[in-house]
Amino acid sequence: MKAGVIGATGYAGAEIVRLLSGHSRVDGLILSSVSFEGGRIEEVYPNFIGRISAPLVKAEAVVSEADVVFSALPHGVGEQFAKICVEKGKPFIDMSADFRFGEDEATFKKWYGKDYVHPELRKYSIYGLPELNRGKIKGSRAGGQGSVIIGNPGCYPTGASLGCFPALAKGLAAGSIIVDAASGISGGGREPSRQFHYPECADSVAPYKIGAHRHTPEIARNFAAMAATEGRVSSTVVFTPHLVPMNRGILSTIYIPLAEKAPENNEEQISKFRSLYADFYKDEPFVRVLPSGVIAATNRVRNSNYCDISVHLDHSGSTLIVVSAIDNMVKGAAGQAVQNMNLIFGFDEKTALEAIPALF
Amino acid sequence: MKAGVIGATGYAGAEIVRLLSGHSRVDGLILSSVSFEGGRIEEVYPNFIGRISAPLVKAEAVVSEADVVFSALPHGVGEQFAKICVEKGKPFIDMSADFRFGEDEATFKKWYGKDYVHPELRKYSIYGLPELNRGKIKGSRAGGQGSVIIGNPGCYPTGASLGCFPALAKGLAAGSIIVDAASGISGGGREPSRQFHYPECADSVAPYKIGAHRHTPEIARNFAAMAATEGRVSSTVVFTPHLVPMNRGILSTIYIPLAEKAPENNEEQISKFRSLYADFYKDEPFVRVLPSGVIAATNRVRNSNYCDISVHLDHSGSTLIVVSAIDNMVKGAAGQAVQNMNLIFGFDEKTALEAIPALF
Amino acid sequence: MKAGVIGATGYAGAEIVRLLSGHSRVDGLILSSVSFEGGRIEEVYPNFIGRISAPLVKAEAVVSEADVVFSALPHGVGEQFAKICVEKGKPFIDMSADFRFGEDEATFKKWYGKDYVHPELRKYSIYGLPELNRGKIKGSRAGGQGSVIIGNPGCYPTGASLGCFPALAKGLAAGSIIVDAASGISGGGREPSRQFHYPECADSVAPYKIGAHRHTPEIARNFAAMAATEGRVSSTVVFTPHLVPMNRGILSTIYIPLAEKAPENNEEQISKFRSLYADFYKDEPFVRVLPSGVIAATNRVRNSNYCDISVHLDHSGSTLIVVSAIDNMVKGAAGQAVQNMNLIFGFDEKTALEAIPALF
Amino acid sequence: MKAGVIGATGYAGAEIVRLLSGHSRVDGLILSSVSFEGGRIEEVYPNFIGRISAPLVKAEAVVSEADVVFSALPHGVGEQFAKICVEKGKPFIDMSADFRFGEDEATFKKWYGKDYVHPELRKYSIYGLPELNRGKIKGSRAGGQGSVIIGNPGCYPTGASLGCFPALAKGLAAGSIIVDAASGISGGGREPSRQFHYPECADSVAPYKIGAHRHTPEIARNFAAMAATEGRVSSTVVFTPHLVPMNRGILSTIYIPLAEKAPENNEEQISKFRSLYADFYKDEPFVRVLPSGVIAATNRVRNSNYCDISVHLDHSGSTLIVVSAIDNMVKGAAGQAVQNMNLIFGFDEKTALEAIPALF
Repeated sequence: MKAGVIGATGYAGAEIVRLLSGHSRVDGLILSSVSFEGGRIEEVYPNFIGRISAPLVKAEAVVSEADVVFSALPHGVGEQFAKICVEKGKPFIDMSADFRFGEDEATFKKWYGKDYVHPELRKYSIYGLPELNRGKIKGSRAGGQGSVIIGNPGCYPTGASLGCFPALAKGLAAGSIIVDAASGISGGGREPSRQFHYPECADSVAPYKIGAHRHTPEIARNFAAMAATEGRVSSTVVFTPHLVPMNRGILSTIYIPLAEKAPENNEEQISKFRSLYADFYKDEPFVRVLPSGVIAATNRVRNSNYCDISVHLDHSGSTLIVVSAIDNMVKGAAGQAVQNMNLIFGFDEKTALEAIPALF
Repeated sequence: MKAGVIGATGYAGAEIVRLLSGHSRVDGLILSSVSFEGGRIEEVYPNFIGRISAPLVKAEAVVSEADVVFSALPHGVGEQFAKICVEKGKPFIDMSADFRFGEDEATFKKWYGKDYVHPELRKYSIYGLPELNRGKIKGSRAGGQGSVIIGNPGCYPTGASLGCFPALAKGLAAGSIIVDAASGISGGGREPSRQFHYPECADSVAPYKIGAHRHTPEIARNFAAMAATEGRVSSTVVFTPHLVPMNRGILSTIYIPLAEKAPENNEEQISKFRSLYADFYKDEPFVRVLPSGVIAATNRVRNSNYCDISVHLDHSGSTLIVVSAIDNMVKGAAGQAVQNMNLIFGFDEKTALEAIPALF
Repeated sequence: MKAGVIGATGYAGAEIVRLLSGHSRVDGLILSSVSFEGGRIEEVYPNFIGRISAPLVKAEAVVSEADVVFSALPHGVGEQFAKICVEKGKPFIDMSADFRFGEDEATFKKWYGKDYVHPELRKYSIYGLPELNRGKIKGSRAGGQGSVIIGNPGCYPTGASLGCFPALAKGLAAGSIIVDAASGISGGGREPSRQFHYPECADSVAPYKIGAHRHTPEIARNFAAMAATEGRVSSTVVFTPHLVPMNRGILSTIYIPLAEKAPENNEEQISKFRSLYADFYKDEPFVRVLPSGVIAATNRVRNSNYCDISVHLDHSGSTLIVVSAIDNMVKGAAGQAVQNMNLIFGFDEKTALEAIPALF
Repeated sequence: MKAGVIGATGYAGAEIVRLLSGHSRVDGLILSSVSFEGGRIEEVYPNFIGRISAPLVKAEAVVSEADVVFSALPHGVGEQFAKICVEKGKPFIDMSADFRFGEDEATFKKWYGKDYVHPELRKYSIYGLPELNRGKIKGSRAGGQGSVIIGNPGCYPTGASLGCFPALAKGLAAGSIIVDAASGISGGGREPSRQFHYPECADSVAPYKIGAHRHTPEIARNFAAMAATEGRVSSTVVFTPHLVPMNRGILSTIYIPLAEKAPENNEEQISKFRSLYADFYKDEPFVRVLPSGVIAATNRVRNSNYCDISVHLDHSGSTLIVVSAIDNMVKGAAGQAVQNMNLIFGFDEKTALEAIPALF
């Protein structure tokens, strides 16, 4: 099976390439890059020297030759390739926001300032968060017939949603949920800019796009979708992203006002909430609900597809505090995309995603 | 005038020493250290070589020879020296929590697990947050008579309180206020430990003491005190500290539920809140309410005594989001202590605190 | 096959555990720890939760049950276990310096201040740098008879030696070779100390043990050994280690005075030296001689067993400048140990060491 | 007195502005910026808010209104303003390389690829390293008559030269001196680029421009100039710069082959060399020769104008190893420029440069 990556030289694209290189079902990579067309990816990423030397071709060649296509293009640019893939019956896994909102073009347009290029494609699209939509994604290509487009989730929405799903499904939450998140700088991509210039972001922590980050509606939609699975009314969301001086990782500290204040704030009470979370995720291969005494931190999921979750209670017992940690490049982007590929084709969901996190 | 520092070789103590070395009213330093007694501070801090060579003596000598005493000892250890200073009529500025709660020994005991050693000293103590208690601190030693003990504020409470005071005084807040804060590693002090070991905390972000940090009651008390200045009822507090891989700085992202939802969420509405903040702090020398378009970040207050504040609104208009940034070693510790000294003696409040922040 | 790790909870031990967990020939791990005996390794390293839950037993149990034993104990402590392994015919791979100097006890004693505990064990020991001693290591256990102890190389000597071997073997060098090396902080191990305390080493670079680091004689011995393979006289060594604020990696910038000054300093001349290096290492699976235009850097070998080497010439043409980069935890420690295990047992040398470096 | 800065919004320019703001003899700043003309510097550097609000004007206005002009323009751009200053009799302190080579246009042209625009200006220029040329710089404007242009030294040459001067003047060195230097990322300036993009340079160390960095001839020239002061023959230079993940600082580890091998390698022998260094610099206000047991490191000169120097010997006694540390933005750029201004006008050399280094 041949896998293709359009936009392979951006950070997300290159991470997909790295993961696919170790995928037991993939025996060929077709990679494209506008900026480096004609070169080889190991020239752009010397860390790949001797390991991944695929030539960088045109996106059209990727779509033509690959059996599954990953697109790591900016928002609004990749629909043309999705269209071709649908016509050819090839799965298209899109890292942009283009297919995250399905039929809800209005929300996409409001936050991303663009119309859908091919609105009719949305009938093939699934929001690719396996913990929410595994049933829809799984085997969507089994048998070879049918087309599927995956709108791969945003990095922040992945961490925020996984941190809140059990509370939402079980009706614990009441009122506005606050998601205070911190991301490593790789989340900003490979293009240099003042914001990601080393001397401007090292040894500092800085919020950005307060009250206005585009991942806000995606988080809100996910919260509503999960609440709806159990007939609950969803909470509203306040979301603030921060940049912290680290390479990888997203930590989300989530404040969930409890519909019923906890009768007491002690370890026993907290363990009830923790058990509820652990039970909710008991069959999930990539969600780890941490035991008592362990707090989620980004250096414990480094380079892995895990989402670690720790459950806490504020001092007064009125707010459930949940901390989730992911590697923004893996579960927050490339790893989740590969997980979606595995599901689509009916492979073991963990294929190529078995890395054990290194502490550093 | 001679200034003394007990515990001069810890990070807070050494930072006080550094600031006092440039203080125009101080012409001598008397420094003590248990660990390095008999040595000189430049042997412990080679950065001081050729500049600060004071010998390290016993704490008793500091109390005996200095005209003002700073104490950078752990909680519960310094009261004996405070007692002597009170008897001698020398101001005692304490970096520990011993004098932050005044007559409220119960709260101190609950969170710090200790009784007051000399409860009667609290009648001389003032909580040293100038933006709250300047009137009490200022000139408290003028004329030479009377004694004063300053309970210098905790680092997190300083950033959290300054970020909330205007909203509390003006009655904007309703319900539980969430303070999500991130600190540089220097906040953990000079003593090595696993938590602050470079490979364990670099390139990662990690919350700690969730729902249980000792600064929680100090923040709550400050909120109540400020609300009370205008006859308001205070909000409750949820406080979560994080460690981020940087040397200095505390960023507090504060979520204040609005008593009245903002009629709209636009720049004009936000500017009303910002103006309210700017007006509240218009006479404060060390609080900068940032203009539209600038978000508080720790690298803009580095090495300075400033608290930068930026004011924002969440997407729905129901939550005021305030970001405050301080240097945890300066406004969060040593700088504020010197500010208190300046106030006590009637000096210009900015003496020795004039450093312009360097971006890096 | 069962693999054992004595001292599994130090950084080197835990990295061996992580690598062995993905080793296709290993189906069981026996781990020991003095500090955490009775616990499980995932309690010490929460990043291992759900993946490596082996109990931590006594070292004696490791030696008794495992088919191969890795020892990550401090210098001088592990010989007792090596002795048992030799008696039982089990390979013993030692991360300490105890077996790096073979019969040369005098050098060991001079630099490490200790006598050999069991000098007679040295007749079973091989210095485990595969690029120097592959022939001796390979299949040393084939057939099951015979015992072998591997003195796994130090981190600095690995990078320094690989950077110099071709020049030494080909007789390019004359005079004293300078190895200026920089290490990530993980090289200092898991035990907290002032030197590795985040605020003391972040945002700074600092040399240490100048002219006195214990790895100096190991580097000198390797240089001499390689020169001797071709009947050359070795150069002397000047070695200076530095700490830089990063987690992993060792960069060695090596200055080799040329026996014959290059006739010119241009890309053509440099490419001759580069070709010599590339040819020397053409069959090595883990040494990458980088093409023109690419300079070795630690972030291109991260988490991999590679040693990247780039070849340069100083402006005057009199000094060959070679830069080598390794991950100190992998090729500099745990990865090389696993490489040695693979060689001993006749496995594919790359087993469990296939990770493609991630840029960050 | 009014001081002007052309190119005030680059890192070097802004650091000059920050230092001059605290200069007791300067009562007005005239700042220019091409990129932000018409704005104010606090809009570009929010850390300056409330402190430095000077408008950004045209360079012509700076030259016209200021009494001394600092130029932080790129190489080759500032000569036009130097010319005007010379005509008006105003000191011109240039941060570019334009005036570092004086009459030696050939070297400048070879390494910078440009001709002098106004060669005749070199008769007014002095290379602004006070430890080499204080006599020429000092009072060069005393009395008001005469013009002077300062070619402010490069950052690497400052650290390298100060580390070698005593050895060169005293004839200790024989043969090629190796300068292995590591710089913080701020040395690359404010303009974003791939090389200084956070995820590409964090948690890594990387050499660059090996054998080809433009500071090489400046270092060589300084070595020769110092050797010549005592009639010595200079050594040749091999110089390799590295980028390390820190904001500020340059560490130079310098290998000086001794003309006479030290008879022994012990602390007594080293102290002789250290004494020679200490004696050489005994009257220098900004050079600190560190005592035994203290090794130079960049975090001990942070934000200060100091150059710290520690003296060592390699294991064999044949190579003197000297480590020098400076803050690249202060002694390596802006601080040295202000030091030159102080000398030119006969002010106390330390004015505005009194900051005591903070450890972090």
